[in-house]
Amino acid sequence: MHIHSRIADLRGALAKRGRIVFVPTMGNLHAGHISLMEQARAHGDTVVASIFVNRLQFGPNEDFDKYPRTFQADCDKLTAAGVDVLFAPTEADLYPEPQEYFVEPPGIQNILDGEFRPGHFRGVATVVTKLFNCVQPQAALFGKKDYQQLMVIRNMTRQLLLPIDIIGGETVRADDGLALSSRNGYLSADERAEAPRLYRLLNEIRDAIRNGNRDFAALEQAAIAELNAKGWTTDYIAIRRQHDLSPTGDDKQALVILAASRLGKTRLIDNLEI
Amino acid sequence: MHIHSRIADLRGALAKRGRIVFVPTMGNLHAGHISLMEQARAHGDTVVASIFVNRLQFGPNEDFDKYPRTFQADCDKLTAAGVDVLFAPTEADLYPEPQEYFVEPPGIQNILDGEFRPGHFRGVATVVTKLFNCVQPQAALFGKKDYQQLMVIRNMTRQLLLPIDIIGGETVRADDGLALSSRNGYLSADERAEAPRLYRLLNEIRDAIRNGNRDFAALEQAAIAELNAKGWTTDYIAIRRQHDLSPTGDDKQALVILAASRLGKTRLIDNLEI
Repeated sequence: MHIHSRIADLRGALAKRGRIVFVPTMGNLHAGHISLMEQARAHGDTVVASIFVNRLQFGPNEDFDKYPRTFQADCDKLTAAGVDVLFAPTEADLYPEPQEYFVEPPGIQNILDGEFRPGHFRGVATVVTKLFNCVQPQAALFGKKDYQQLMVIRNMTRQLLLPIDIIGGETVRADDGLALSSRNGYLSADERAEAPRLYRLLNEIRDAIRNGNRDFAALEQAAIAELNAKGWTTDYIAIRRQHDLSPTGDDKQALVILAASRLGKTRLIDNLEI
Repeated sequence: MHIHSRIADLRGALAKRGRIVFVPTMGNLHAGHISLMEQARAHGDTVVASIFVNRLQFGPNEDFDKYPRTFQADCDKLTAAGVDVLFAPTEADLYPEPQEYFVEPPGIQNILDGEFRPGHFRGVATVVTKLFNCVQPQAALFGKKDYQQLMVIRNMTRQLLLPIDIIGGETVRADDGLALSSRNGYLSADERAEAPRLYRLLNEIRDAIRNGNRDFAALEQAAIAELNAKGWTTDYIAIRRQHDLSPTGDDKQALVILAASRLGKTRLIDNLEI
């Protein structure tokens, strides 16, 4: 695997490559990330990953400095996964001056996770645009686990006419259904045993909708009540349109159920497309 | 000259070209535009122009519908100037859906011309990003006459890491100094005779600064007073830093004098770098 930190070096190395598939990450890689790298292989000739902890998407109450940096272990995993090129810029490469020009998403940035993380999706949209302009891939993969992020990036890419196919990578789950996340490591044994309830509830809501239940608000409230009764603190359970995550009473559209809830100090998110 | 309206056709036509230099316009071309096309030739192998009247940069009180469309005459001029490729998208090509994702410039978008045209530079930054993503040039030329636009695009391009050299094209002037503009055609004979005063005043301010005058506010006010005494209605005369157009008391920085003033119903802008 070739590793580049300088933008000019990266561009030079990629100039003669075939179809490039790009998988941006913030490092601290787990099996879900590695699955994205393997899925990427099917979409092009050269798989490029990036590791960059993006200050711009952290809120003032979110701890940018304590975000785990595990660079050498990440490199070993990416090499084993057959990634061709790693772009690992420093902050001075990507933000040589304070960022003043932003890619500004519409209202979708203020709902669901955006309500709890003001400015987060603006920071994501801006850094992804910058990474895209460095790598200039033909396709890019983003995990469906961060569903709202995937939709923001997909819509942004289409609206700004970036010549890049945005591909949603499937979520990898433990045998009991819990979506893989670096945050799972923070769970106590008891919390880890409780955690799969989130995905079970998403499946129950999906089944209810498939069976004709159209009272989305009641389905959401019942799931929140069950979680909170079991010791969770729930930010949202929401049945939404896939495209823009807006509320809908119409079950004929493509829907997704999204959830964010805290178990102890650990905030877990998950979702399920219908 | 090859003309493309579809993005996919354009990209196909440009895929095998050498270094591409791009000159975006809104059509209604005059000798100033044609000079940009000729200047562009020195910066690459293939000169691509675009004609697109961008609804997004017109304010609610600015008449998008009445903006002059002179497509056939424009094509003839571009062909005569040796332009290789014209990109002339329709609104359905560039805005197939309402634009929701914007490239948002910082405070520079609200000063000088931005104060009089709210949302204008956001519309410019967004459409230029989209046009860049269609054409994917290695260099792009923007006239210095629209100096604030040039600075917004130069700073945006650098901050978003777009791999494009932004080149300022020199302003073309009539023999009496008046900057060429499609708006000059709206001037009466008397107004046309008066119009060169604007550029003369910019030169006088430059000379005063070169001779050691550091009272920028007094220089600005004196010029505004002279213009308004001669029947102009002046929006601003401003001595600013070139880079971000912010005010400065320091004449050791690279400065530019910017002006916008109305003669009858015609709003003229001009500027002069020091």
